[in-house]
Amino acid sequence: MDTNSALDILWILVAGILVFFMQAGFALVEAGFTRAKNVGNIVMKNFMDLSFGSLLFWIIGYSLMYGGNGAFFGTFDFLYGEPDNYHNLFFQTVFAATAATIVSGAMAERTKFSTYLIYTVIITAFIYPISGHWIWGGGWLSTLETPFHDFAGSTVVHSVGGWMALAGAWTIGPRLGKYNGKAKAIPGHNMVLGALGVFILWMGWFGFNPGSQLAISGDNAHAVASIFITTNLAAAAGAVFTMFVTWLRYGKPDLSMTLNGALAGLVGITAGCNIVSPIGAALIGSIAGLVVVFSIELFDKVLKVDDPVGAISVHGVCGAMGTLLVGFFATDGGLLYGGGASLLWSQAIGVVSVGAWAFGLGLILFQTLKATMGLRVSEQEEREGLDIHEHGQTSYN
Amino acid sequence: MDTNSALDILWILVAGILVFFMQAGFALVEAGFTRAKNVGNIVMKNFMDLSFGSLLFWIIGYSLMYGGNGAFFGTFDFLYGEPDNYHNLFFQTVFAATAATIVSGAMAERTKFSTYLIYTVIITAFIYPISGHWIWGGGWLSTLETPFHDFAGSTVVHSVGGWMALAGAWTIGPRLGKYNGKAKAIPGHNMVLGALGVFILWMGWFGFNPGSQLAISGDNAHAVASIFITTNLAAAAGAVFTMFVTWLRYGKPDLSMTLNGALAGLVGITAGCNIVSPIGAALIGSIAGLVVVFSIELFDKVLKVDDPVGAISVHGVCGAMGTLLVGFFATDGGLLYGGGASLLWSQAIGVVSVGAWAFGLGLILFQTLKATMGLRVSEQEEREGLDIHEHGQTSYN
Amino acid sequence: MDTNSALDILWILVAGILVFFMQAGFALVEAGFTRAKNVGNIVMKNFMDLSFGSLLFWIIGYSLMYGGNGAFFGTFDFLYGEPDNYHNLFFQTVFAATAATIVSGAMAERTKFSTYLIYTVIITAFIYPISGHWIWGGGWLSTLETPFHDFAGSTVVHSVGGWMALAGAWTIGPRLGKYNGKAKAIPGHNMVLGALGVFILWMGWFGFNPGSQLAISGDNAHAVASIFITTNLAAAAGAVFTMFVTWLRYGKPDLSMTLNGALAGLVGITAGCNIVSPIGAALIGSIAGLVVVFSIELFDKVLKVDDPVGAISVHGVCGAMGTLLVGFFATDGGLLYGGGASLLWSQAIGVVSVGAWAFGLGLILFQTLKATMGLRVSEQEEREGLDIHEHGQTSYN
Repeated sequence: MDTNSALDILWILVAGILVFFMQAGFALVEAGFTRAKNVGNIVMKNFMDLSFGSLLFWIIGYSLMYGGNGAFFGTFDFLYGEPDNYHNLFFQTVFAATAATIVSGAMAERTKFSTYLIYTVIITAFIYPISGHWIWGGGWLSTLETPFHDFAGSTVVHSVGGWMALAGAWTIGPRLGKYNGKAKAIPGHNMVLGALGVFILWMGWFGFNPGSQLAISGDNAHAVASIFITTNLAAAAGAVFTMFVTWLRYGKPDLSMTLNGALAGLVGITAGCNIVSPIGAALIGSIAGLVVVFSIELFDKVLKVDDPVGAISVHGVCGAMGTLLVGFFATDGGLLYGGGASLLWSQAIGVVSVGAWAFGLGLILFQTLKATMGLRVSEQEEREGLDIHEHGQTSYN
Repeated sequence: MDTNSALDILWILVAGILVFFMQAGFALVEAGFTRAKNVGNIVMKNFMDLSFGSLLFWIIGYSLMYGGNGAFFGTFDFLYGEPDNYHNLFFQTVFAATAATIVSGAMAERTKFSTYLIYTVIITAFIYPISGHWIWGGGWLSTLETPFHDFAGSTVVHSVGGWMALAGAWTIGPRLGKYNGKAKAIPGHNMVLGALGVFILWMGWFGFNPGSQLAISGDNAHAVASIFITTNLAAAAGAVFTMFVTWLRYGKPDLSMTLNGALAGLVGITAGCNIVSPIGAALIGSIAGLVVVFSIELFDKVLKVDDPVGAISVHGVCGAMGTLLVGFFATDGGLLYGGGASLLWSQAIGVVSVGAWAFGLGLILFQTLKATMGLRVSEQEEREGLDIHEHGQTSYN
Repeated sequence: MDTNSALDILWILVAGILVFFMQAGFALVEAGFTRAKNVGNIVMKNFMDLSFGSLLFWIIGYSLMYGGNGAFFGTFDFLYGEPDNYHNLFFQTVFAATAATIVSGAMAERTKFSTYLIYTVIITAFIYPISGHWIWGGGWLSTLETPFHDFAGSTVVHSVGGWMALAGAWTIGPRLGKYNGKAKAIPGHNMVLGALGVFILWMGWFGFNPGSQLAISGDNAHAVASIFITTNLAAAAGAVFTMFVTWLRYGKPDLSMTLNGALAGLVGITAGCNIVSPIGAALIGSIAGLVVVFSIELFDKVLKVDDPVGAISVHGVCGAMGTLLVGFFATDGGLLYGGGASLLWSQAIGVVSVGAWAFGLGLILFQTLKATMGLRVSEQEEREGLDIHEHGQTSYN
C-alpha cells in the first residue's frame, strides 16, 4: 500500500477511537443528568448499545448500509466486512453505536432493560443502516439532482437517534411525579459527571466530523483542519449563546443547559462542517444554542414529553435544523451565498423523509414493544430505583 | 528518515498514549469497585505504579527485556534507551506500568502503602522485563520450533499481573468481614466510576493491541485495522455473554460483572488479535465472558481468595486462556484450522512457564515482604480506612 | 500537498486534541480540590474559558500573537486564520484556553461568575497573545542574541496563567474561614476526580510538549519521541519526589500534594523538553517536585495567599523555575554542559519580563474589576455555595 493510503487509514482509525470514546461521554451525560438510583441502569444501557451495536452492525447493518447501490437499502451480506475495509467497518460501527445510544437518555429512569435490548438490536441492525444507506451508501437521497448534503451525520446519526428518542419518550410517557399539574424539574444527581461527559463528547466530535473526510493525505489535510475549526467554533458559540439566553430568561447562567448548548452547536454543525466558513459555523452554533433552549422548554412544558437529558432537542431538533441551515450557509450552493433554493430544497426533503422514517419506525417499534413485552418498569421499581430492581445492586454504596 | 518510518513512529506514539491512559482506567475501576474509605489509597498506588514504573523500567527494566538475545534475560545496560528507539521505550514503558497496576486491585483495601512500593519497583525493574524477554525480547520462548505466540501480551502483561495478583491476594488474606462463614459480597462504592474506567480501558486497548503491530505503513495498515476489529468484537462479545450468563445465574443482568466481561474479552483476544478471524475473535470473547463469571465465583466462594475487583480472573485466568485459545483459533497453525497441536503445545509451554515464574516470584516476594516489613495494615486502619491512616486525609469531604 | 506535510498536519491536529482534553483535566482537578457546593461554578468557569477562548483567540488573539514580526505584538487582523494555517489556529487556540483556565482554580469558591467572564475574554484576546508574541511570534525575546528558549510554554502558557492567578488570588483575598489565626486546610471534596484530572493532564501533555515540535516527518520523528521521554520522566520524577518530601515533612505520603508534584514536573519540563537529556529531565522533574511543596506552603502559610488548588506554585513558580533550569540543563548551551551563562541570562530576562507583564496586567485588571463590577460574591453566597446562588442549581442532588 502506498504511504498516502496508510496515512488515511491511520487517520480513520484514530478518528474512530475518538468517536468510540463518545460512548463514555454519552454515558456520563445521561448518568449525571438522572438520579442516583437509576445510574447503573443507564450506564448498562449505554454499554449494551456499544456491545450489541458492535456485533449487530457487523453481522447485519454494515451490508445494508454500504452493500451496493440500491435506492433504499444495500444488499444484505452476512458479516460483510473484508480486511481491505476493516478501517471503514470500525469507523462506521462506532457511528451506528452513537445513533443507538441517543435514545437511552430520553427514555431514562423508567424503561425496562430487557425491552431496551430489543430496541438497540433493531436500530443498529436495520433502522440506522437503511436511512444511512439513502445518504451515505449510494441510496436515493444521494442521487437527487442536487444531492442531499449531510457530511458527518446531523441527520444520518443525530436526527435518527433524536426522532426515535421522541417516539420512545412519547410512547412510554413521563416519569412519575414529573407532571402533577405543571412540569416539575427533576434535577440530575451529578453535574460534574455531566460536564465531563460533554468535554469528552466535544473532543470526540474531532473524530466524528473531521474523520468523516475519510482521508487526510494531500489536500484532505487542509480540509480536515478546516473542519476542526468549524466544529470547534460552533460548539463554543453554542455554549456561549445558550449561557446568555438562560441568563436572560432565568436570571442566572444555567450550567446543565449551557452544556447542552455546546452539544447543540456540535450537532448543528455536523451536516455542513466541511462547506461552511468559520463565521458560518459560529452562526450555526449560535442559532443552535438559541433554539435548543426553546426546544427543550417546548417539549418539557408544552408538549409534556419527558426527556431527562434533552436528547430530542439536542439531537433531533438541532440535527434537523443544522441540516437545513446547510441550505443557507453552504459557501457553494447556499441561499445566503447566492446559490438559490435547490440545495435547501434537497435538505428539506432529506430532513423530512429521514424524520418520517425514524419517527415512524420508532413509533411502530415502541408501541409494539409496549403492547407485547411491556416497555415500562413497575411503579414500585421506578420509585425505588432501576438499579436495585433491574440489576440487583445499587451503584453507590 | 523516510516518510513510512515517521508514520510508523507516529502510530507507536499515539498507541502509547492510549496505553498510558489505561492507567486512569485501572485507577477508576479499582476505585469504583472498592469502598470510599480506601479510594485515595488505591488511586495513589496506581499513580505510583505509573511513576515508579516510568523511572524503573527506563533505568533497569528496558535493557533486561530488550538488551540483546540472551535466552533468559537481556544484557543489563543502565538507562538503555537511545534517541532512535525512544518511541519504543515509551511504548514498552506504558506496557510495564500496565502489568504493575493489575496487582493493586486484587490486594486493595488492606495492603500497606510502603510495602506496595517495594513490590511495584521489583515488578517493573525485574519480574515483568525478564519473562517479557523470553517472548518479545528474543528469549527462549520465541525460539521454540513453533514459537510461542503472544502478540500484544495476554501472557506477557496480563497473566504476569494476574498471577502476581493471585500470589499477593492469597498471601495477604481476605479483607476483614469477607469470610465469616460464607463469602459476603462487599460492594464497590461507585459503579459510574467503574464503568468509566472500563470505557477508558476498552479505548486504551485500541493502542494496546493494534499498536503492538509496531508499524502502520504499507501492508501494516490493513493488519492494524484488522486488529481493531478483532479487539472490538471480542470485547463486545465478552460483555454480551457475561451479561446473559449473570442473568441466567443470578436472575438479573449484573453491571459490575458485565463490565468485567468486556475486560475478559479484551484480555482474551490480546494474544491472538492479529491471527484470528473476526468470528474467531467473537468466539474467544464469548468464551472469556463465560469463563470469567465462573472463575470469579471459584476464587471468591470456593478458594476464598479475596480479590475485590476480579483481577485474578480477568487478567490471570483469561490471559492464560486467551493465550491457549490461539492454539485453536489461529487461522494459520491453529487446531481448528487443521494446523495440528504444535502451536497449542507451544502456547501451553509459555502459559505454564510464565505462570510459574510470575506466581512463584510473586509468592517469594510477598511472603518475604510479609515476614519483614509487613504486608498488611492494622485491623484498626482497615476498619477506619486506609485513606485517613495511610495518607492523612479522606478522599471525600 | 506532499505526504510529509499532511503527516505533520495530522500530528498537529492529534496533539491539539490532547491539549483540548486538558480542559477536562483542569476542570476535574479544580472541582475535586474544592468543595461540593461550588463545583458547578468552577466547572462552568472552565467551560467558558474554553468557549470564550475559542472565539476570542480566533477573532483577536491569533493575529496579535502571530500576525507579523513586530517587537511587541503582531499586526491585528480580524479573524486572522486562513485555510492553510487552520491546523495551527486550532493548536494555538487550545494553548490559549489552557493559559486562561489556570486562573480559575486559584480564585475558586469566591469569584463572581460575571466578572470572571471579563477576565477570560481579556486574557485570551490580549494578555496571553501579546507576551506569547514576544517568544513564539517573532517578538523581542526571540531576537535576543541568545534567544530566550521556551519550547512548549513553561513561561508562555503556564507562568502567564500562574502569575495572573497570583494577582487574582491576592486581590480577591482568602476564602472565608481560611485564616482565623493560622492557616486552616479546606480539603477538596473528591480526590478521585482530582486524580482523574491529573491523569488526563499528564496524557494531554503528550500533545502539549511533543506537539510543539509542529512536525513529525523526517528527523522530527525522533525529536518528538525524545520529548515523550523527557516529558514522561519529569512527571514521574516530580510525583515520586513530592511523595517522599511530604512523607518526610508530614509523616505520611500525601495524595493531593503528590498529584500536584506530577503537574509540577510537567510544567517544569515544558520549556526545555526538546533540549535536555532524559537524566536532565528527571532532575528537572525532581527539583520541581521538591520546590512545589515548599512553594505551596509559602503561599499558604507565610504569604497567606489562598490558592485552593496550588495553581500559583504549580504553574507560576514551577513554570518560571523550569524556564530558568533550561539555562543549566540544555545539552547545547546550558551552564552544566559548559555553555556559559548567556542562555541562563536570556532565560532570566524572559522569566522576569513575562512575569512582570502577566502579574502587572493581572493586578491592574483584577483591581479594576474589583473597584467596578466587584470581584467577589457576597458572604452569604460564599457560605451557602456559588452553585445555588450563581447558577440556580446545586450540582449534587
